[in-house]
Amino acid sequence: MPSACVFCDILQGRVPAFTVLDEPGHLAFLDIRPLFAGHVLLVPRAHVETLGDLPQDAVAPLFLAAQRLTRAVEKGLGAEGTFVAMNNRISQSVPHLHVHVVPRRKKDGLKGFFWPRTKYASDAEAEAVRDRLRAAL
Amino acid sequence: MPSACVFCDILQGRVPAFTVLDEPGHLAFLDIRPLFAGHVLLVPRAHVETLGDLPQDAVAPLFLAAQRLTRAVEKGLGAEGTFVAMNNRISQSVPHLHVHVVPRRKKDGLKGFFWPRTKYASDAEAEAVRDRLRAAL
Repeated sequence: MPSACVFCDILQGRVPAFTVLDEPGHLAFLDIRPLFAGHVLLVPRAHVETLGDLPQDAVAPLFLAAQRLTRAVEKGLGAEGTFVAMNNRISQSVPHLHVHVVPRRKKDGLKGFFWPRTKYASDAEAEAVRDRLRAAL
Repeated sequence: MPSACVFCDILQGRVPAFTVLDEPGHLAFLDIRPLFAGHVLLVPRAHVETLGDLPQDAVAPLFLAAQRLTRAVEKGLGAEGTFVAMNNRISQSVPHLHVHVVPRRKKDGLKGFFWPRTKYASDAEAEAVRDRLRAAL
């Protein structure tokens, strides 16, 4: 019986996937609706929703794996670069942390960022935002 | 005299920035052309171009800092989620590795991913891509 989380189902072998990397702390497999062929999802085995929820001792293994995947995408698929990203809560399609590793090439039709940039109205506004972040760290 | 790299200039104090987090291995500061107020750039002190170039022993400190920044953006700015991303080479505006940490809110007008998704034409095509990645790891 499938669980409530499709990535847990993949991790437990109940749902098939095209597995790229299978290691004790995490699994990487092809996104079946890729931005480009070779778009990989890297997920920790422990079910956590966001990067903020990941246990500290899982951070290094996960991102060392992400690093290796960026190199593999370049070497194995001849990509010229990669896009590595996580959506935490907002725009997160599956509420199980997943790192996207996407092959990129020049003139592949994607914009880098994607969205109109804004501006701080004044240095004072930027300082206020900075101070709220510092206080929260 | 400024160097060839604006992030190295910021790291060395030759160019001002709104610094959020100042630690031995990395610095985080406000992107001055943010997607939303509170958009932070986290950069390693060592000049490396991409995630693939980052020394292994710098991976854990950098992403533990990214994790703390996602929490700080939520706690300090009341964001409901975050977008965490790196462009490696393609669409990379400054060729010094930087992790974007962007506050997200429901109905903030951004799409999660951004781009039309494609499909593998067949399982055989997906298997071939998977095998090339496995061989490159």
